[in-house]
Amino acid sequence: MAQADIALIGLAVMGQNLILNMNDHGFVVCAFNRTVSKVDDFLANEAKGTKVVGAQSLKEMVSKLKKPRRIILLVKAGQAVDDFIEKLVPLLDTGDIIIDGGNSEYRDTTRRCRDLKAKGILFVGSGVSGGEEGARYGPSLMPGGNKEAWPHIKTIFQSIAAKVGTGEPCCDWVGDEGAGHFVKMVHNGIEYGDMQLICEAYHLMKDVLGMAQDEMAQAFQDWNKTELDSFLIEITANILKFQDTDGKYLLPKIRDSAGQKGTGKWTAISALEYGVPVTLIGEAVFARCLSSLKDERIQASKKLKGPQKFQFDGDKKSFLEDIRKALYASKIISYAQGFMLLRQAATEFGWTLNYGGIALMWRGGCIIRRTPGGEQSALGSRLAFPCPVLLLPSPSMMGTDMRCFQPTSSRRSGITSGLTPMNCWPNQGSLSTPTGQATVAVCHPRHTMPDRAAPVTLHDSTDQDIPCASWHRHLALCPIFCSDLFLKCCKRLLRKTHSLFAK
Amino acid sequence: MAQADIALIGLAVMGQNLILNMNDHGFVVCAFNRTVSKVDDFLANEAKGTKVVGAQSLKEMVSKLKKPRRIILLVKAGQAVDDFIEKLVPLLDTGDIIIDGGNSEYRDTTRRCRDLKAKGILFVGSGVSGGEEGARYGPSLMPGGNKEAWPHIKTIFQSIAAKVGTGEPCCDWVGDEGAGHFVKMVHNGIEYGDMQLICEAYHLMKDVLGMAQDEMAQAFQDWNKTELDSFLIEITANILKFQDTDGKYLLPKIRDSAGQKGTGKWTAISALEYGVPVTLIGEAVFARCLSSLKDERIQASKKLKGPQKFQFDGDKKSFLEDIRKALYASKIISYAQGFMLLRQAATEFGWTLNYGGIALMWRGGCIIRRTPGGEQSALGSRLAFPCPVLLLPSPSMMGTDMRCFQPTSSRRSGITSGLTPMNCWPNQGSLSTPTGQATVAVCHPRHTMPDRAAPVTLHDSTDQDIPCASWHRHLALCPIFCSDLFLKCCKRLLRKTHSLFAK
Repeated sequence: MAQADIALIGLAVMGQNLILNMNDHGFVVCAFNRTVSKVDDFLANEAKGTKVVGAQSLKEMVSKLKKPRRIILLVKAGQAVDDFIEKLVPLLDTGDIIIDGGNSEYRDTTRRCRDLKAKGILFVGSGVSGGEEGARYGPSLMPGGNKEAWPHIKTIFQSIAAKVGTGEPCCDWVGDEGAGHFVKMVHNGIEYGDMQLICEAYHLMKDVLGMAQDEMAQAFQDWNKTELDSFLIEITANILKFQDTDGKYLLPKIRDSAGQKGTGKWTAISALEYGVPVTLIGEAVFARCLSSLKDERIQASKKLKGPQKFQFDGDKKSFLEDIRKALYASKIISYAQGFMLLRQAATEFGWTLNYGGIALMWRGGCIIRRTPGGEQSALGSRLAFPCPVLLLPSPSMMGTDMRCFQPTSSRRSGITSGLTPMNCWPNQGSLSTPTGQATVAVCHPRHTMPDRAAPVTLHDSTDQDIPCASWHRHLALCPIFCSDLFLKCCKRLLRKTHSLFAK
Repeated sequence: MAQADIALIGLAVMGQNLILNMNDHGFVVCAFNRTVSKVDDFLANEAKGTKVVGAQSLKEMVSKLKKPRRIILLVKAGQAVDDFIEKLVPLLDTGDIIIDGGNSEYRDTTRRCRDLKAKGILFVGSGVSGGEEGARYGPSLMPGGNKEAWPHIKTIFQSIAAKVGTGEPCCDWVGDEGAGHFVKMVHNGIEYGDMQLICEAYHLMKDVLGMAQDEMAQAFQDWNKTELDSFLIEITANILKFQDTDGKYLLPKIRDSAGQKGTGKWTAISALEYGVPVTLIGEAVFARCLSSLKDERIQASKKLKGPQKFQFDGDKKSFLEDIRKALYASKIISYAQGFMLLRQAATEFGWTLNYGGIALMWRGGCIIRRTPGGEQSALGSRLAFPCPVLLLPSPSMMGTDMRCFQPTSSRRSGITSGLTPMNCWPNQGSLSTPTGQATVAVCHPRHTMPDRAAPVTLHDSTDQDIPCASWHRHLALCPIFCSDLFLKCCKRLLRKTHSLFAK
């Protein structure tokens, strides 16, 4: 009866994909969902032919688990997590493990960790980054909480995580209590900063250098072969190249107003609470706030005309290289500020944080990760979790007409499918994984444009999908009142750190 | 028996001064304190010869009050407020009024307002700005909460408040629930911003224009005769002029590291929570955080040498005027951002805020107020609460050797006594007040230097004294990593809003 290695509650796409990922690595997973019919649907469809088992009740689920029991919750952050914990506790024994893989607030995780410790249950709050595709083929995992749980979940977690270098997993124990969710929060804050920096680089290219859209796309593509080589720079090039059905570029048509869901804001609030000058993320969050005041900005633009059209008469190439270096310098500062915040939080809460491990965890799987650039983006290159996922439609779309995929498709596949699906045909390849059981489709990594625009989705952290357009909007942020953290870094820092970044 | 118009609990200097202020305006005040012996001390000393009465217990205090009873709490924010409320409620009748004049968090005020409404008690949370001297001679008062209380406290509040223009009180009803404390919090945030802007102007004067300290003092003194005319600009000139016992300027000797107590931070956190881009205050708070990382800044300065010594070769006078205009533009932006936050909070909480009244409340009495400049700073000038207080030692020091005053002296008197006491001798003058009973000492408003330096205190919001040096430190903020919100406003905004500010 007790044959399952682990259970997972919450069969939204993230949960389903994490189950399939664990299954691929040889683990037997028991699936459960509040709406129980979803379990049967999952077993009959996505999980068909796998070793995944289902349960009709929490009691049945618990009875199917080997001891110590390991249960992952992937449900909506907040009350739902507490509700499931309350129902689970009477069914569990001392030493059993509950893992919250949602985007919970770190204080909630600390509270749950303490409450459950008193009851003999080991609680883990784990950041999970990489969206649906990450969950399926290799997320960045940031577990923290009761460390006694770690030996019992380490093999599973490190098996399913993204791999970098010579196979090091993007997953290690982060620290005590809410540390895992805190680190995930800071990760998302850094993502806000990275995106804002890209927007400001775009602004300088467009409004100072007067570059055309294809020139800008080329610049980002070139930058992706330098130190800036990363997921966000790569998709920026793709977004810039993307053409609407009328053959015109889509980006300038998009409303320059960005939304947000909270983790960037939480990061900035934590920075203020703990007195750490995480200025870059703070400005990035405020820039989104400002961008959303569209009506007021239109009104203001009628009163404040701004400077006259600018004619750059310097050395364009050299200025562009300055922008690139400034972007790089700014990123370093932003990451340093993020780590300062982690250090201060560790002091505040008495956590022992694994800083080296955190840096490693962010190398792959997650949104702020590095990716190999250009034609090198095949398997076996510097990172083990690179472009196959980036360049592929999501698994559920394989074999379907990729021009017709739905806006609910996942982040990475969404964005890349929207940009590159036409010449991509799913082929089976294999990924180097501990169990050797993982399969992943690979495709020719040449970027081509789809015949017609498809609605695509993208989100900026891992809990919900938002329309991809929001990201485009952010990239197109109106500069009239835009914060100039980038200019700041550009002018002041490059002047000061020139020797560091100039060859 | 019931002869007192109002009671006040909490006989620290703020409380004592507010009582004496109310007494001066013809109101009978009943004084109470948790440590009851302080009541007798107060009656035998500071309140000797006044109509102030005391009480030995809360019950006695309540029995001495006319109905509806009005009770002001001036105790430490937090638990102490809840404790007193709990003790008071059983002693009160429906329609009685409790006023919290401390620096409470606005959410606490909202909670108390709702709880007490259910019990028939009218609760008011009032911002009180102006420090000890403000409490004594005219604070800026920002009451909010249960509006039914307003008709019963309006006369007292508006009588004792600072006056501006032709006698308009710096006090009006702010809005519902925690609105009064929210407005006070934003006021303090703006104060953080104003101080940071002054620091950055100082930095540009010193490190770009290479101005000597007396030149800078003169510049601020000149600016105080322009649109910038205000309390903070005035004391900046005085601080710059202040010499140490060795005849050298004190300012450059002071460690460039600033502390903070919370209201600026709360303002920035609220801005993030409600999605309002209050960037200027946010940067000001982060600049303080950064300044406090002194050891790390020293280490960093050894690695990053910064730009080579700068030789300004432009038009100094014109650049200085640019700085002045930029400071003015930045202040306008900061206030506008503060009001945007108020507007958003009003939407969030369903408050109806009195924006015009708030602007008026901030014209006098408080730290961000305007003051008349230079030799015009006598009674009867534009503001009715101007330099008499600024230029005078605190009441408790009158008649004492002003060269020997203690570091516990109050903010304004401390700072101005430290700078100007030598030719100041207390003379009795009168201030135009509704009851005509107020007296205030006036002195010759000529600034002269004290024979020797005395420790002075200054604080940046109204709850506790911090060493004045902290303010100096802030003014001397090391620019190596300093945020350049000022430069931002200077370069981008002035370029864009030139037509607004250039004549």
